[in-house]
Amino acid sequence: MGSTKAAIVRVAESLSARKPLDFVGSHPMAGSNLSGFAVSRADLFRGATIILTPTDRTARDAVKRVTEFWEAAGGRVVTMDPATHDRAVAAVSHLPHLVADALVDAVVRMDPQFLEVAGRGFKDTTRIAASSPEVWREIFEENREALAEAVAAFRAAFGDLESVLCSGDRVRIEGELERIRKIRAALG
Amino acid sequence: MGSTKAAIVRVAESLSARKPLDFVGSHPMAGSNLSGFAVSRADLFRGATIILTPTDRTARDAVKRVTEFWEAAGGRVVTMDPATHDRAVAAVSHLPHLVADALVDAVVRMDPQFLEVAGRGFKDTTRIAASSPEVWREIFEENREALAEAVAAFRAAFGDLESVLCSGDRVRIEGELERIRKIRAALG
Repeated sequence: MGSTKAAIVRVAESLSARKPLDFVGSHPMAGSNLSGFAVSRADLFRGATIILTPTDRTARDAVKRVTEFWEAAGGRVVTMDPATHDRAVAAVSHLPHLVADALVDAVVRMDPQFLEVAGRGFKDTTRIAASSPEVWREIFEENREALAEAVAAFRAAFGDLESVLCSGDRVRIEGELERIRKIRAALG
Repeated sequence: MGSTKAAIVRVAESLSARKPLDFVGSHPMAGSNLSGFAVSRADLFRGATIILTPTDRTARDAVKRVTEFWEAAGGRVVTMDPATHDRAVAAVSHLPHLVADALVDAVVRMDPQFLEVAGRGFKDTTRIAASSPEVWREIFEENREALAEAVAAFRAAFGDLESVLCSGDRVRIEGELERIRKIRAALG
């Protein structure tokens, strides 16, 4: 288990000449900003997406056993190669964390007192900024290549959105907001 | 009631030569990404922050009555001048919406399939992107000046955070993440 996969799978596969190998990368997309034993829950993995990252060296039987393990815990298993996993989590997990951090800091830079009127929207948007610095320093470091790609995609998206807003073209603005609204709403 | 205040208060005060005036700008920081009568709730304002924006022309009695109204609905009333209100909501509401939109679009630009592994963190961070395009087009337009200030603060915060990560200095990285974590954690 762990938040990045390319490096650890490479190391694991270098430790043995055996093929097939009984090592299956797993990443349960579960949990919250809290960490440690005190916040453990019996249903932590129920309904969670679990990413497995087998390669052409991974034993099929090991993938089957690991899949059964996660499904028994209530997870939904999907499979990706390690590099694609790292890009996917950079996009949907590491980038959002970085953005949430910057959002909190942006408010502080404008006026820390503005935090006093932050409502549910702000709290939802920035919740992941209240996560363990040690854990996230490691994640950002380990996945810096994929994160750089995600940061570039975000910058481009943010800049384009700003341009659309600046255009003053109401049809275009609402069209763009509606396109994004639909994509987000489909996630539930 | 409404999401921006400087313009509407200016117009309201121009409509009458009376002083004091029975107009009090109110902005309940409540609700969600959903809108319309079907999602109305009796406890919508319970625990919500309500921003009132009286000016030196506002009747004190009107402020008192409006405050009592909101407190009866369970709200916590704070007071700001209209321009400060617009900057505050640009920071804690309008900027986060724009950032959430760009986050959703960034993932789509990398690979729309990555959305399939989005977990709770991504959903929380981007929830407000699933809001009414009509409402938000108007808000962004109305508050564009304060929003531009918030966007600049965000860009600076995001860039600085990226620089800290790129430095590879673990103590500095964890220090910065911890500084932000504490601020966010204090919001509850």
